[in-house]
Amino acid sequence: MKSVESIATAARAASYELASSSGAKREACLFAMAAAIRAHSPGILAANQLDLRAAQASGTAGHMLDRLALDEKRVEVMATALVEVAGLPDPIGRIDSMWTRPNGLRVGRRRIPLGVIGIIYEARPNVTSDAAALCVKSGNAVVLKGGSEALHSNQAIAMALQEGLAQGGLPAEVVGFIDSSERSAVNEMLVLDEQIDVIIPRGGEGLIRFVSEHAKMPVIKHYKGVCHVYVDASAELEMATNILVNAKVQRPSVCNAAETLLVHRDAATLLAPIAEALIEHGVTLHVCPRSHALLANHAYCVEATESDWGQEYLSLDLSVKIVDSMDEAIAHIRRYGSLHTEAIVTNDYRRAERFLERVDSSTVLVNASTRFADGGELGLGAEIGISTTKLHAFGPMGLDELTTTKFVVYGNGQVRS
Amino acid sequence: MKSVESIATAARAASYELASSSGAKREACLFAMAAAIRAHSPGILAANQLDLRAAQASGTAGHMLDRLALDEKRVEVMATALVEVAGLPDPIGRIDSMWTRPNGLRVGRRRIPLGVIGIIYEARPNVTSDAAALCVKSGNAVVLKGGSEALHSNQAIAMALQEGLAQGGLPAEVVGFIDSSERSAVNEMLVLDEQIDVIIPRGGEGLIRFVSEHAKMPVIKHYKGVCHVYVDASAELEMATNILVNAKVQRPSVCNAAETLLVHRDAATLLAPIAEALIEHGVTLHVCPRSHALLANHAYCVEATESDWGQEYLSLDLSVKIVDSMDEAIAHIRRYGSLHTEAIVTNDYRRAERFLERVDSSTVLVNASTRFADGGELGLGAEIGISTTKLHAFGPMGLDELTTTKFVVYGNGQVRS
Repeated sequence: MKSVESIATAARAASYELASSSGAKREACLFAMAAAIRAHSPGILAANQLDLRAAQASGTAGHMLDRLALDEKRVEVMATALVEVAGLPDPIGRIDSMWTRPNGLRVGRRRIPLGVIGIIYEARPNVTSDAAALCVKSGNAVVLKGGSEALHSNQAIAMALQEGLAQGGLPAEVVGFIDSSERSAVNEMLVLDEQIDVIIPRGGEGLIRFVSEHAKMPVIKHYKGVCHVYVDASAELEMATNILVNAKVQRPSVCNAAETLLVHRDAATLLAPIAEALIEHGVTLHVCPRSHALLANHAYCVEATESDWGQEYLSLDLSVKIVDSMDEAIAHIRRYGSLHTEAIVTNDYRRAERFLERVDSSTVLVNASTRFADGGELGLGAEIGISTTKLHAFGPMGLDELTTTKFVVYGNGQVRS
Repeated sequence: MKSVESIATAARAASYELASSSGAKREACLFAMAAAIRAHSPGILAANQLDLRAAQASGTAGHMLDRLALDEKRVEVMATALVEVAGLPDPIGRIDSMWTRPNGLRVGRRRIPLGVIGIIYEARPNVTSDAAALCVKSGNAVVLKGGSEALHSNQAIAMALQEGLAQGGLPAEVVGFIDSSERSAVNEMLVLDEQIDVIIPRGGEGLIRFVSEHAKMPVIKHYKGVCHVYVDASAELEMATNILVNAKVQRPSVCNAAETLLVHRDAATLLAPIAEALIEHGVTLHVCPRSHALLANHAYCVEATESDWGQEYLSLDLSVKIVDSMDEAIAHIRRYGSLHTEAIVTNDYRRAERFLERVDSSTVLVNASTRFADGGELGLGAEIGISTTKLHAFGPMGLDELTTTKFVVYGNGQVRS
């Protein structure tokens, strides 16, 4: 077993060749990686069986087993994703803008890879393949550290990816894989700031806090998504209901699902029918006293406590509050939100614009579901994660967010006076 | 004296009003701040006398006294800088791009301030005013912590700026000033990650390392500038000489001054005349054995040791090495450089492009002096600092680098299927 440091050092060395490779070569590698995943499908599934049996033996919960499990279809989805990423526009080498200075210097900002990206993740083995695809496409080497419960699956996937890279003509070390189930491997990774430029942790809040506290390099992260839908005075009932049901019910376990409904007092008559629709979908409402008084059906209502505001339920629960004004809604979001995603339902032009301007979150929507806060849905082509801190990237991150720019300057002998 | 936490908390509260203020209001405030600096010039100069007398009494070196000293002209330069920053294009609210999704959602990336920026700096009192100007223009509140040696000067400047803000109609708390000469105030600041979004340290390497190690929030930094000039085989003598003299001699104490000269062996005949010109300007050369053999005048040459490569002299010293190839030059830069700024002197088109592509530094120049690695010189309008880490910003940082973008989404009832 190679040491974490030797894997990261090899990734750093390989990153230079990768960074100056042509887009065509990176594309060819991604095709070869997809082919290798398909060719090694039986081996990947066999490795996955080892992980599944161990997980069953240790009494892992059913929904965790489902996240871990692979079948032929899921392996094919991984291969298809590699092909799709291969076809995205190449960000590397792009000159975002260029201008000429009075002294004749031509100054451009040229897009370059970040270098080496560390990904620390839990559960789903497809992250191994998806994250590697985005890194290779954007010219970055990657060091992958998956969860111990998926070690054999991740290992088999990583080996196939490395084989594809070599076939495509890039060093296999471009995709570094930490072949260890030890937690200490994470700690070893987090001090390698000479080798790894940035860490992206993907997993529960505990993992993310641990990584943020111990990493010597920058970390791109989001802790949680406490997304609000604000139903303004001028909202239409049908639209508000559709958006609320979609935002809460379609997939409650994800970070862009709604967790709180705020209703302007002048739209209070909308609350009862919206609540009925949500309750029909099995939602439990955690309501403020004014909301409680407006609702007839109290079987699925509980009184909200202070801890309900700011709660990321990730379940069929929704906190509900009547507010006296849009500014009260904005202040509530500022106090209890997570800078992730908020939506307003309104037909008032000026208030829509004010909400878009004043709400500080990474995605702010008018008359659309919070579930659109996703790189693919917003049109980034792909998503490596979502950042709720403002530095480097804010919101869903695509290929561009895995790059930076350097200044390139074309002169003809200029000196500074 | 207010606590550090109360100053930062007040800055955070004020930042919301600032962030949604109009560009016209921020511009008016900057004009009022300039007027207040001019009006309080006598008080600022009197405060500066207190600092100067204390510094003289404690035996501060002459060049440090010069950095600390203000006179009417220097105060006027501060006021002029405020007016100039007021006139720069407003980055806030700018939609960098907008597109429509197949489902009709219109998605835009809207530029917003980072929030609250902490600046920790040493020496020159004008940083108080210059940093505040850039933060206010870009819609950011700022928390300033200057060096203890300039406490009275910084205090007088900050009070004038706050008076101008209030006159212009924004909260004075937008410019927070930590009124303490205690080192512990820095530590208090570095844990306030709820209040301060990013820290920019400006000063010596010791300060920057201390801040990086202890800050709970992201830090934008550069440790040092070890800038290389590579004279390629096809370089012209006159251009190479002019660039080297400018890069080394014009202002040796700054981070974008050249520290190492690399010469292709096929341009070895250029070394002697370039060295003569540098020696004439008082430069001491730290030379490799091959360079030594090429130089006749050894009075200003010393033999380079391993520690000369990678040395940031900040003085009239230059390390010199003959290389066998451009790739050897690039490998040398990769090993000993600081990702700051490198220049090639060449007349070979393909090699110029290869250098621009392969050199990983934040500014890479062809046929121009390294001294152009500066926000003003590159056309950013102003500069808050230079980043040599790739996250968020890489290279000279202007107003745009004090902002981020959020996604704004215009829908008409879309839900995710």
